[in-house]
Amino acid sequence: MPAYQAPLHDMRFMAHYLKHYADKQCPPLADVFDLDLFHAIVVEADRFAQGMMQPSNRIADEFGAQLHEGTVHTTPEWHPLYTQFIESGWIGLALPEAQGGQGLPRSFARAVWEMWYSTNLAFSMLPQLNVAQAEALIATADPRWHQPWLEKIVSGQWAATMDLTEPQAGSDLAATTMRAEPQTDGSYRLFGQKIYISFGEHELAENIVHLVLARLPDAPAGHHGLSLFLAPKYLVDEQGQLGAKNDIACVSIEDKLGIRGSPTCTLIYGDNQGATAYLVGAPNQGLAQMFVMMNEARQAVALQAVGVSEKAYQLARQFARERVQGAVVGQDPATVQPIMHHPDVKRMLLELRSTTFAMRALCYSLGAYVDQLEHTTDAKQKKQLEQLVDVLLPVAKGWCTEKASYNSALAVQVFGGMGYVEETGIAQVMRDARILPIFEGTTGIQAKDLLGRKLLRDKGQSLAVLLQHIERSIAPLTQYPSLAATADLLQRAVDAGRASVESLLTSSRSLYSLFAVSVPLLELLGVLSAAWQLAQLAVFANQASAQAAEGQEYCVGVQQLWLYYATHQLPTVHALAQVVQSGGTAIEQADFDWALI
Amino acid sequence: MPAYQAPLHDMRFMAHYLKHYADKQCPPLADVFDLDLFHAIVVEADRFAQGMMQPSNRIADEFGAQLHEGTVHTTPEWHPLYTQFIESGWIGLALPEAQGGQGLPRSFARAVWEMWYSTNLAFSMLPQLNVAQAEALIATADPRWHQPWLEKIVSGQWAATMDLTEPQAGSDLAATTMRAEPQTDGSYRLFGQKIYISFGEHELAENIVHLVLARLPDAPAGHHGLSLFLAPKYLVDEQGQLGAKNDIACVSIEDKLGIRGSPTCTLIYGDNQGATAYLVGAPNQGLAQMFVMMNEARQAVALQAVGVSEKAYQLARQFARERVQGAVVGQDPATVQPIMHHPDVKRMLLELRSTTFAMRALCYSLGAYVDQLEHTTDAKQKKQLEQLVDVLLPVAKGWCTEKASYNSALAVQVFGGMGYVEETGIAQVMRDARILPIFEGTTGIQAKDLLGRKLLRDKGQSLAVLLQHIERSIAPLTQYPSLAATADLLQRAVDAGRASVESLLTSSRSLYSLFAVSVPLLELLGVLSAAWQLAQLAVFANQASAQAAEGQEYCVGVQQLWLYYATHQLPTVHALAQVVQSGGTAIEQADFDWALI
Repeated sequence: MPAYQAPLHDMRFMAHYLKHYADKQCPPLADVFDLDLFHAIVVEADRFAQGMMQPSNRIADEFGAQLHEGTVHTTPEWHPLYTQFIESGWIGLALPEAQGGQGLPRSFARAVWEMWYSTNLAFSMLPQLNVAQAEALIATADPRWHQPWLEKIVSGQWAATMDLTEPQAGSDLAATTMRAEPQTDGSYRLFGQKIYISFGEHELAENIVHLVLARLPDAPAGHHGLSLFLAPKYLVDEQGQLGAKNDIACVSIEDKLGIRGSPTCTLIYGDNQGATAYLVGAPNQGLAQMFVMMNEARQAVALQAVGVSEKAYQLARQFARERVQGAVVGQDPATVQPIMHHPDVKRMLLELRSTTFAMRALCYSLGAYVDQLEHTTDAKQKKQLEQLVDVLLPVAKGWCTEKASYNSALAVQVFGGMGYVEETGIAQVMRDARILPIFEGTTGIQAKDLLGRKLLRDKGQSLAVLLQHIERSIAPLTQYPSLAATADLLQRAVDAGRASVESLLTSSRSLYSLFAVSVPLLELLGVLSAAWQLAQLAVFANQASAQAAEGQEYCVGVQQLWLYYATHQLPTVHALAQVVQSGGTAIEQADFDWALI
Repeated sequence: MPAYQAPLHDMRFMAHYLKHYADKQCPPLADVFDLDLFHAIVVEADRFAQGMMQPSNRIADEFGAQLHEGTVHTTPEWHPLYTQFIESGWIGLALPEAQGGQGLPRSFARAVWEMWYSTNLAFSMLPQLNVAQAEALIATADPRWHQPWLEKIVSGQWAATMDLTEPQAGSDLAATTMRAEPQTDGSYRLFGQKIYISFGEHELAENIVHLVLARLPDAPAGHHGLSLFLAPKYLVDEQGQLGAKNDIACVSIEDKLGIRGSPTCTLIYGDNQGATAYLVGAPNQGLAQMFVMMNEARQAVALQAVGVSEKAYQLARQFARERVQGAVVGQDPATVQPIMHHPDVKRMLLELRSTTFAMRALCYSLGAYVDQLEHTTDAKQKKQLEQLVDVLLPVAKGWCTEKASYNSALAVQVFGGMGYVEETGIAQVMRDARILPIFEGTTGIQAKDLLGRKLLRDKGQSLAVLLQHIERSIAPLTQYPSLAATADLLQRAVDAGRASVESLLTSSRSLYSLFAVSVPLLELLGVLSAAWQLAQLAVFANQASAQAAEGQEYCVGVQQLWLYYATHQLPTVHALAQVVQSGGTAIEQADFDWALI
């Protein structure tokens, strides 16, 4: 199994950049952004990732998850791993100190979690659920959840799940049918079936806390009638002691393409007397509350894409450096070389690295914007930050995950035939990656959210904020001879993006046609946002402070990634702009019976 | 397991088109192109594909291949399947009658083999090796191979392999080290190791005939020193009777991502006295001879891409027609609908279908050009056909296989979460598809062949022939109101393609930089060639004869596929043209240590 090493150079460079950004934009954030602490944490996390997380990644893929008489068994190596993980306090890293967390900036935690996702995606989904559920419970601002729930969730003594999907309710949560019956003691009983519940049942933690969408008896139809409930695997008494098993049964687990170590469960609630549950927040407000957890999860999945893509790059690079095959075109035909020297292999490696670098920048920056929101009091600035986060969230989730899926397949291509055998590990990366554009809202769902809620509903205001931010990164490029030529490339791409957004707002095309180009729109904004991030970093790499911190050679390398991206990936924007501006009608008009025969 | 049905409508439509083409371009080919016979054969093949091939596809994926004491066991269901397959005479369909084949046009056989690839890719690789090996032996024009070798290969009584790869010799066959020692009786003894040999060992046929690249003692270094040998699993006496086992041992098989039913073997030649083998063709001419088999195999892999892509489309379409989820945007929010009605799902289905349709047209047409070559005596016409085939082969292999890989992943996306569980079958399609851009020459190798041998070496003559053909399909579009708008789109795409080719021929960029954009060039020509095929078919669909044969509604559907493709896929050409015309330098200049840190 090839070894992973955390990209500490890249992570530190990003941290320097974010600190630099915070110094200018948000001094209160800069105050808590301690670079020395960041360095210490990522070194420690790298040690944990390599030493503890990585070793069971392949083993868990082969072991899968096994269901015996209602109990799910994960690979035995995960028991000590889970214990070590929670004892090291990784779950609470960026959670509030008041809840037992360490209160570090989200952008700090990004680097740490990226390592978990690189080294053991299937396992790390488990503690990530704790973070997302903690955020959701904290957002209720209801002290009832502090003890024992939040305490145990943040420490990891108990595990967490997010129970939304039912057989008839996947992307369409309005179709949820799980029933919640009020009890005289103020609790509820749940009846129904949930499917695709990640870590819905396992023995790694002493209890599992499910957050469940269900309907009260008098609830209105559709998604306005959903309420959120907390239902533990084992009932908990007033003193926080575990009691009897709740009426929740795992009846099957899925045989999946990847993330095979993680159990994906079908849970039956209330096959006997009903599963005891507690209402979280107000009745019929469940979807909004669940969306706190969902949005946290979507940011996590975008970051999973970074981790998976980094892993794919590292494996491909290592293989390409070691595998000797053939002479390089234009050079001595008798001198064989490592394949990384072949132009097309070098192209693939640059593609992998530049996009992974951009994805990382996008996800860490998104974390910094959320951090900044918490430190901002100026109403106008707050509004703009919210708009930026709103629009970047579906772009980051959609674009990064599609890219990770593409990149993992591209890394297989670097390996050639050896990529197709499981032994090299890259095939598992590709299998694991394929879930990312699907779970926590498919790319289509992200694109629908982007076009419907974030563009059409607010008449393009949020997107205008994003495009302004991107445009502001152009002028600085002209100040450096090595980057000047890319300013025009980026300006033309921004113009194409703006024209595309404009065309959607003013189009005479049908609503159906517009939504038919929502994914190309998302992709366009993804390519453009990645360019924005890389352009900013290339400019930052010219600064003396950056060069002093990471070295001049490293900084030149960063600029080369942007030069590659600007000339080889950015042109895609123009093709996508053409589709967004003139597409959709051919889709609407195609006959279901004959064009789709 | 969802059911596959051969796309008989599409296949008949293609056959009508090719017959129409042959009538105009090559009457001798038209004479043997019997549409009634074609229809009868595809109906029969569909029955075989559904009834015989399909049932063991999933079973074989789960069974894999198992090695016990040197013997490879495939899933038990394959024994009766293989017997039925060869008894039905499918191997000889397009092989010469003189060799026991049925002498039908290649373009006929395309439709039949597409069905095998759709329903059981792993199994169908086995008889495909017979076809490719038969073509290679026939090309030697050496009567020694007729009895018993060719007879048994064409009948399928014996199986075939192609033994090129060695641990240090993958894409670079010049590094081949297998030794061939001449014996006094005129035979040779082989010593060495071959890896990644598909069906290198199994018990499905009574003998296996290996075609092996090896070096004679006095051979020059590099690929000019390779000779081709025939080495049977069991020795064969003068009467064609099987004797002792040859000194060829299968020592391991690979655990693969997909095509798991097919054994991928490591073979050790000559661990004892040496493996008895016979020289095929002249000494040191082995690579050219093997390339007859290789080129046949590459065409087969391009067609496998069609089969896999069709399967992916059918599964996605079936799921999207049945799965009900949510209301369609702009319609009554209370009315839930099958997901195919959602604009983004319809986009994905049109993407799958239009590209599959184009890939099919490209592969069948390529078969028709090869057929036509055999019936053409005019030297100039022959030259042009050869140039067209030369340039289309890497484009078809490279582009179709990348597309099939992309399409199978896109089909998983149509399924959403259900695509990620193995139960629905689409995950296997994606796993199987991933080998296509790798084996028989990776996409990078195809692109290198395209740019080096087919463009730079002949100074763009072959590509000029292709571009002329494509350009000729533009004017007819203007004659039909529903298609007229696409003429300009295609013209601009052809112009961009021509400018790209021109820029490569006249560039001041280094050779390294040019080869760094060889894959974008291949992709550009793939997108353009697909457009060419669809445009021709859309025009043909307007003809009375086409409408009489397949119905007016079907013909409108074909035109809608072109309208979708022209507005949603063709724009990609412009992005790729920008990369081809100005890319490469950023790749060459990127620092290995710092940009690819």
